[in-house]
Amino acid sequence: MNIAVAERMSGIGPFYVMDLLARARALEQQGRSIIHMAVGEPDFVTPEPLTQAGIDALKAGKTHYTPAAGLPELRARLATFYRDQLEVEVPAEHIIITPGASGALQLALGVTVNPRERVMMADPGYPCNRHFVRMFGGEAQCVPVDSSSDYQLTAELIEQQWTPETKAVMIASPSNPSGTMVDASEIAQINAFVKQQGGVLIIDEIYAMLSYEQPAYSLLADAPDAFIINSFSKYFGMTGWRLGWLIAPAAYVDAVDRLAQNIFLAAPTVAQHAALSAFEPETMQILASRREAFKARRDYLMPALQQLGFEITTKPPGAFYLYADCSRFTEDSHAFVLDVLEKAGVAITPGCDFGDHRANQHVRFAYTTAIENLREGVARLKGYLSSA
Amino acid sequence: MNIAVAERMSGIGPFYVMDLLARARALEQQGRSIIHMAVGEPDFVTPEPLTQAGIDALKAGKTHYTPAAGLPELRARLATFYRDQLEVEVPAEHIIITPGASGALQLALGVTVNPRERVMMADPGYPCNRHFVRMFGGEAQCVPVDSSSDYQLTAELIEQQWTPETKAVMIASPSNPSGTMVDASEIAQINAFVKQQGGVLIIDEIYAMLSYEQPAYSLLADAPDAFIINSFSKYFGMTGWRLGWLIAPAAYVDAVDRLAQNIFLAAPTVAQHAALSAFEPETMQILASRREAFKARRDYLMPALQQLGFEITTKPPGAFYLYADCSRFTEDSHAFVLDVLEKAGVAITPGCDFGDHRANQHVRFAYTTAIENLREGVARLKGYLSSA
Repeated sequence: MNIAVAERMSGIGPFYVMDLLARARALEQQGRSIIHMAVGEPDFVTPEPLTQAGIDALKAGKTHYTPAAGLPELRARLATFYRDQLEVEVPAEHIIITPGASGALQLALGVTVNPRERVMMADPGYPCNRHFVRMFGGEAQCVPVDSSSDYQLTAELIEQQWTPETKAVMIASPSNPSGTMVDASEIAQINAFVKQQGGVLIIDEIYAMLSYEQPAYSLLADAPDAFIINSFSKYFGMTGWRLGWLIAPAAYVDAVDRLAQNIFLAAPTVAQHAALSAFEPETMQILASRREAFKARRDYLMPALQQLGFEITTKPPGAFYLYADCSRFTEDSHAFVLDVLEKAGVAITPGCDFGDHRANQHVRFAYTTAIENLREGVARLKGYLSSA
Repeated sequence: MNIAVAERMSGIGPFYVMDLLARARALEQQGRSIIHMAVGEPDFVTPEPLTQAGIDALKAGKTHYTPAAGLPELRARLATFYRDQLEVEVPAEHIIITPGASGALQLALGVTVNPRERVMMADPGYPCNRHFVRMFGGEAQCVPVDSSSDYQLTAELIEQQWTPETKAVMIASPSNPSGTMVDASEIAQINAFVKQQGGVLIIDEIYAMLSYEQPAYSLLADAPDAFIINSFSKYFGMTGWRLGWLIAPAAYVDAVDRLAQNIFLAAPTVAQHAALSAFEPETMQILASRREAFKARRDYLMPALQQLGFEITTKPPGAFYLYADCSRFTEDSHAFVLDVLEKAGVAITPGCDFGDHRANQHVRFAYTTAIENLREGVARLKGYLSSA
């Protein structure tokens, strides 16, 4: 066979951290202890009430397909959640249940982006975004951002960078890798500008419930025309269940439903039944205490890293990441993280997994491990840096 | 907002059967009895050993992400299954676990098809295939087939229809909607021709284990360079779990893994753990008896429909569908199925859900309901047709 991998794949790299994690596993198999601060997945297992609801659904034989847009009762439950907890009115019919936020991203871009159109996004940012855009024949328009704008796009930047080919803007709040947020007045300005240009605004809120400085809220309140991406993975501790949701503007709901029918059929049934228990007081209490644990980890880790010489200018108000400037130690953060893994037994993620802009001077720390482990990780880094 | 749904969505229709099913539900809510012969999903729930394995996995807290390509032990188990049951050697590293066959289709097309390249497929066929191709900017090259070739592409047809723009050929064996299969010598010829042209062969075998006339086998044995799509949905009764797999030729494995990392992250974890029990003798025995039940349904339904005047020329050796020529009754099968639903209370699928070629003269019957229901459905159809 004449091997001809599709051209799009030349632009879709693996996550660099995958090789690093494989090396970490190899070291562990040799008996080395590794402190894991690289993985964007909570260390907590799924809360017991959710797991129990999943078990109950399986026992009741709920193993057939659901409608493509999801269980009507889950869509209704999410609408109630938005109304009661986040103070935004969303009709249940605008909420489409998806296989993870990945599914929601694919739907939002699939119904909006035409080939050769551009989608603006921050660099650094979640790496899959630019690959989804590429998959649909569009072009990722990566705008360099840094600590001066909290690693976020601003209304000003978006206006400056907008081109006739720009069709959409993607925002993540809180963001991966930086954990920073966009505030309500900024998003209202962005929304107004994008609307005026006839464009589309896509807001990733998968970390929105992991908000440490203020009660969680949805930017949908200030950008009612936006697509909202969300997920049960991060806050609700359901990563492996593969369940998320998309809120689509009314005019796109029908297209989203058709695309979902064709590319997924439906999200996993047992996960949908489990998620019905996500908003019960018992679950919410567990999740609130986990949020406090994440906050305590952040409050320990950030100053500890700063003391070592990592530069972190903003205290990130959400998610579970610290995006640190490591230029005091290296101009090649990828080589640096590999060396840190080998010599200090600490796994962190290189900046190049999130884009190009000053990627070589940045690393991401994930506080997805217990505070004792973070302390040990910091001690090891201290030893490493003082002997380097 | 200037509403501009992406152009690709104009070619991605809903399944017509969705409206019919909604109408069926409405009639049922009014107290009408409906016989369901429209749904491409087994009526059986997931076999108990699989469900129990899923419950055990949840109890053990297996709720985190797996690697993008799937649990190594499930990939290894599938390789053993191919070797022992289907007599084909497949390295476990070539088997990628996916969110349903939908995920496998997306990966196979994503790593092979460039914009404007053509993918040849049978009309009638599984409707999502042409939409996946369109999603990647390719063009579905739908080749009309009829009962003279058992509704399948042949080596001869493929050679006739091949164009310089053709990049890939998709075959489904057994096929949806016809249940017919491609035999080993034909696929070897097809494989040789496609290989000679530098093209790619993609074979959908999601119904391969539902083989009634001969032991199940994989066409991979005769087309070792092909991509193979498969799934735990249909034979293993795991539709709602969303779990499938892709076998990729060696040269594409790396690209498939990268694309999976980016568009799915991973298939659902609990489903993967449950599927580890799919090949246990206890499960296999349940599945074999279900296969016998499907065979008995086919053997009842096909002659009964023929007696009513539906034309079915080939006894389909697999899947759970009968694709019937209904031109004796109508030249508008879509109107016909709507009328049959209203007047006879029987739900069947119009040909237009599977393509254009003589779609108006065909309907699909799914024998995914108990034989008593099939008998009742046939009796109702008899009454309807005699009074029409």
